[in-house]
Amino acid sequence: MGKTLAEKIFDRHLRDEPFTGTKVLNLDRVLCHEITTPVAIADLVWRGKDRVYDRNKLKVVIDHVTPSKDTKTATQAKILRDWARRHEIPDFFDVGRNGVCHAIFPEKGFIRPGFTVIMGDSHTCTHGAFGAFAAGVGTTDLEVGILKGVCAFREPETIRVNLNGTLPKGVYAKDVILHVIAQLGVNGATDRVIEFRGEIVDQMSMEARMTLCNMAVEAGGTSGVCMPDMTTVEYLWEFIKDEFPTKEAALADYQQWVSDADADYASILDIDVSGLEPQVTYDYKPDCVKSMQEMGGTPVDQVYIGTCTNGRIEDLRQAAAILKGKTIADSVRGIVSPATPKVFSDALAEGLIQIFMDAGFCVTNPTCGACLGMSNGVLAEGEVAAATSNRNFNGRMGKGGMVHLMSPESAAATALTGVITDARTL
Amino acid sequence: MGKTLAEKIFDRHLRDEPFTGTKVLNLDRVLCHEITTPVAIADLVWRGKDRVYDRNKLKVVIDHVTPSKDTKTATQAKILRDWARRHEIPDFFDVGRNGVCHAIFPEKGFIRPGFTVIMGDSHTCTHGAFGAFAAGVGTTDLEVGILKGVCAFREPETIRVNLNGTLPKGVYAKDVILHVIAQLGVNGATDRVIEFRGEIVDQMSMEARMTLCNMAVEAGGTSGVCMPDMTTVEYLWEFIKDEFPTKEAALADYQQWVSDADADYASILDIDVSGLEPQVTYDYKPDCVKSMQEMGGTPVDQVYIGTCTNGRIEDLRQAAAILKGKTIADSVRGIVSPATPKVFSDALAEGLIQIFMDAGFCVTNPTCGACLGMSNGVLAEGEVAAATSNRNFNGRMGKGGMVHLMSPESAAATALTGVITDARTL
Repeated sequence: MGKTLAEKIFDRHLRDEPFTGTKVLNLDRVLCHEITTPVAIADLVWRGKDRVYDRNKLKVVIDHVTPSKDTKTATQAKILRDWARRHEIPDFFDVGRNGVCHAIFPEKGFIRPGFTVIMGDSHTCTHGAFGAFAAGVGTTDLEVGILKGVCAFREPETIRVNLNGTLPKGVYAKDVILHVIAQLGVNGATDRVIEFRGEIVDQMSMEARMTLCNMAVEAGGTSGVCMPDMTTVEYLWEFIKDEFPTKEAALADYQQWVSDADADYASILDIDVSGLEPQVTYDYKPDCVKSMQEMGGTPVDQVYIGTCTNGRIEDLRQAAAILKGKTIADSVRGIVSPATPKVFSDALAEGLIQIFMDAGFCVTNPTCGACLGMSNGVLAEGEVAAATSNRNFNGRMGKGGMVHLMSPESAAATALTGVITDARTL
Repeated sequence: MGKTLAEKIFDRHLRDEPFTGTKVLNLDRVLCHEITTPVAIADLVWRGKDRVYDRNKLKVVIDHVTPSKDTKTATQAKILRDWARRHEIPDFFDVGRNGVCHAIFPEKGFIRPGFTVIMGDSHTCTHGAFGAFAAGVGTTDLEVGILKGVCAFREPETIRVNLNGTLPKGVYAKDVILHVIAQLGVNGATDRVIEFRGEIVDQMSMEARMTLCNMAVEAGGTSGVCMPDMTTVEYLWEFIKDEFPTKEAALADYQQWVSDADADYASILDIDVSGLEPQVTYDYKPDCVKSMQEMGGTPVDQVYIGTCTNGRIEDLRQAAAILKGKTIADSVRGIVSPATPKVFSDALAEGLIQIFMDAGFCVTNPTCGACLGMSNGVLAEGEVAAATSNRNFNGRMGKGGMVHLMSPESAAATALTGVITDARTL
């Protein structure tokens, strides 16, 4: 019997199996941000174990509330900053150099095929786009990870989602993953890895794959994964070119992680995307999904483009293409948060920042606070947002607010009209 | 006996004098932001007087916390927004179109020589740069202003500050006003108007004049004023060109407000700026001022460039000239907040935004929340900031934080080294 990518990673990283089915894995990366890590740091200090297992494997960023909005968040940031300095962690991204964790860490080349990655953040699954096993964990696991470089998991089975057909114009990775979540349900992949396969994934950029994997957790998945291929190698090449003589050599090495043809899956879902329309959520669960057409005409107060789901340069390009030379509706606040300084800088060089500003958008520094109602775009009671983020839970962007999740292109179209609008009808 | 500019404005706007010395003035502008206006709105609604005296004379902006950082600030913004929409106030600047009140209102041409202007904000005195009488007021006065278009003042006497000599290289309006405040003391101009005169003021741009007038309140002044001249006309020309046949005609009209040669002053302060060095505050009062040289070497955690004092394009140019091609110290967080969308857009076109980002600065959307510890750059306990803002009160930028006020050039130099640094020594 062959193995899945996840099983291969589990095998290679196995440190211990204290109970049948519970596997303690060695960690290649422990990622940290200022919301969940300070609690772990405080406990380590209190226990007299203020150490890190490997400063080069910890990657640290302030991203949720940056720059700090009040004394509490300033203190959280300071705890993280002081800790990173104390342990001389080389990859600490402070105000001005910081971006959304799940965008900046891949961008810096920190994630590689076959890696094990944990973080105290739900959307850590994003990094599975590189063929890594990446999972969000609680504070206790994070703390152990920081100290010992290990994490215990029950080995998850894998759900294989085959995405085939032809992606229609105006339909993106975000629409695909919303459709997948609608099929699986919010608990459909609980304790499972979702493996995204098929010609649609093969054709996707790393950015689109990250959008797919980012929302695996919204179906309950422990991680989402894509198979490493030449697209992965091309994305990583600037970081790995000293490790391999050629791209082909890198590819050959990375392909060791690709699931075997005879691997065993918990279930297989076949989806032909050819007829898919732009998707949007309604209500307070990410599996409540309709087409943009069906939801068309719903008024929104705020349009938010950004986050670890859709704040990368491709996302900004898609939105800017819709906005160019136009002005958003007076009734709408438009907010765009480029996910990293590089995304901001690239968008600036490409003229996208000016397009957003001319359209009437507020361009924030890289941060993701609005997505979870922490900063830079919190809704008031009764307000409605169209957002490119990943969660529409009740009150997610602010108490009493409603969030409709959609693609950057759909969000841009919605900003122009002030009501949910299928961009293809503009 | 001649009259001062302030006396002329009081005479022309006098509606009533209920008690000797208490003058009720007609208001040309009532400016509103989301921190103080919602309280006035709530009271007007509660009293059944939800009206505005003249929707064209009210100018409204969300600027202190934008986009909203939590439910409270989202609600404040919503109250202001709903009110502006309900009364069809044409000049309401919401998220994406908004900037710091004392920067965006002049920029839009709303302030003219001879105007009376109030706002529920301490630094309303900024607008005196145009030869207007502009004063910060409390919520009750603001409420009456919104409803009736009047405000009662005890007519202030005027302190005349003559600024002559030659401004040394590296010394700016910010250094001059810090020096003036040091001379007057924080209560030296209480219940007075400070009239800035002399060849130094004559040579200053409107932006530099706004920096001067902005901090009049830090010496206790009700307002700071500059005399309208051709610089004023040039700044306003795009907004007034239909009102006057020529710039000379505008100048002739505006000069009616210039203080008479034989006007009476409470006191006169003569300052030769020729020997002035770059200035900086120490301790927690704005009249605690030393030279940058004297304070040189003091470590800072954060450098903040922006605010109603120094967030305009000239300020950004001065800072960027120092930062160009360099990187700020690792120990420092650099934050720059262009004061308005136009400032941001101009800075973008001139390449300044890229310079700031390349140097390692965080570029925020236009807002001023960091200055008063409300958003986007709040200090943690024990942290020290170098800031181009106007107040160094204890805890101003965050509880337990210290703020050193300085010019944009000085702030940029300090960012490069991580310690207070006179830019002339770089």
